[in-house]
Amino acid sequence: MPLDLSLNLATVRMQWKLPQAVEAAARHGFVGVAPWREMVEETGIAESARIFKANGVRVTGYCRGGLFGAGGRKNLGAAIDDNKRMIDEAAAIAAEGIVIIAGGLAPGSRDLSDTRAMFVEGLAAVLPHARACGIPLALEPMHPMYAADRGCVTTLREMLDIADLLGNDGLGIAIDTYHVWWDPELAVQIARAGKRIIAHHICDWLVPTRHMLTDRGMMGDGVIDFPAIRRMVEAAGYHGVQEVEIFSDYWWGRPGDEVLSTAAERFKSVCQ
Amino acid sequence: MPLDLSLNLATVRMQWKLPQAVEAAARHGFVGVAPWREMVEETGIAESARIFKANGVRVTGYCRGGLFGAGGRKNLGAAIDDNKRMIDEAAAIAAEGIVIIAGGLAPGSRDLSDTRAMFVEGLAAVLPHARACGIPLALEPMHPMYAADRGCVTTLREMLDIADLLGNDGLGIAIDTYHVWWDPELAVQIARAGKRIIAHHICDWLVPTRHMLTDRGMMGDGVIDFPAIRRMVEAAGYHGVQEVEIFSDYWWGRPGDEVLSTAAERFKSVCQ
Repeated sequence: MPLDLSLNLATVRMQWKLPQAVEAAARHGFVGVAPWREMVEETGIAESARIFKANGVRVTGYCRGGLFGAGGRKNLGAAIDDNKRMIDEAAAIAAEGIVIIAGGLAPGSRDLSDTRAMFVEGLAAVLPHARACGIPLALEPMHPMYAADRGCVTTLREMLDIADLLGNDGLGIAIDTYHVWWDPELAVQIARAGKRIIAHHICDWLVPTRHMLTDRGMMGDGVIDFPAIRRMVEAAGYHGVQEVEIFSDYWWGRPGDEVLSTAAERFKSVCQ
Repeated sequence: MPLDLSLNLATVRMQWKLPQAVEAAARHGFVGVAPWREMVEETGIAESARIFKANGVRVTGYCRGGLFGAGGRKNLGAAIDDNKRMIDEAAAIAAEGIVIIAGGLAPGSRDLSDTRAMFVEGLAAVLPHARACGIPLALEPMHPMYAADRGCVTTLREMLDIADLLGNDGLGIAIDTYHVWWDPELAVQIARAGKRIIAHHICDWLVPTRHMLTDRGMMGDGVIDFPAIRRMVEAAGYHGVQEVEIFSDYWWGRPGDEVLSTAAERFKSVCQ
């Protein structure tokens, strides 16, 4: 019985390269994987595509594009070109979408507004190519603690405003519990997102959190109410696969098979 | 020429106890101080009041109350009583207000909604006493990375909704740049806050931030646009003192006089 669960390969990136990670995901019953671009490049695009197919896994997301303003306005054109190439790659590996984050401030910048504006401009510039290739862009708001250096768009409200502004066609929303669980508007903005939700990532918030990037938690080890968020997402109309994505020095230090069996077990015992 | 700047005494809590910190603040030209409760208790309430007066400094805020739901519903009554005592203490030291934070989840709880509800209930219960004593409660939204363990109310929008719900009388808003700088609604919610703003704390966001609590930055060392936020706050009608509050292992390791002279210099060179 396959799990309605996909594995973001970053979860086991210290243990395995792409071929081993995909084989393990399939063996543990995951229906899909979400690879990162550097892993696909390391293995090769054609070979990666072959591996996904040979293991019978879906490619539920390709990580990660966007970040249009992170290099400043002088590099916006290059960021747009790079995102277009990523769309081609996503098509070549039959990914169901690309996860898009807004990106942080350019070095030396303190202008969040302009960084957000560049994100919208970059999205507008790549959207025709994404539509032509049939690759949806899954816009992921990130936790506000990443506003400076990873994702200047931090709330579902703002990301949905951007999707509305760009007409929604070809765009979707990625809900990652780790990034949005704290939001006082979570229920209302998930309801507003509705059918635009095309990705639902799961990861827990630990108390205390010892590192801003690499101390994320296995579901059940932190304070996030997964069933509550799941109910919101299902009420909005999304009944697709969830994807476990955990950046964790602790779990990167455990055997990969233990990580996957734990994630599969917790998905069943904690997240329903 | 005194600075329109107050010193939150936590900024030098590793270097000095209350008497030395207050004397140093006055010597460096700060017009006020904001003491923490444990420092006042250590020195004694009457003696603390005498020290503030003898050094000619205002007491711009007393830190910190609220946290009504942090012990769970069974301890809500005790939290209310404790906040009432704190209001009496604030009156005894002639504090201009109490800084109020929402508090985190009770141990074992994953219910942010109920924690927020207890915060509102607790506020409603202490508000008559605060009004009777003439001590305004400065409601401070905290950065979302503290939602689990310090402040479940994370946005100005939500805090203003709470103030509206409780009728605003006796309530004010504390704007701390560190907590709110990332907010996409910052300008509109500061405008909405208007005359309710009674505290403006300054502290920078470092990139990278190495510790969630104790790696805050001196103004100018991070990415916050202080003049922009100052303009929003002034446009809303607040022209009062600003208060520097920096929790930092780095600055706690420097001589107290260096911290104060640096803060005073940066306030003039970075924050105008």
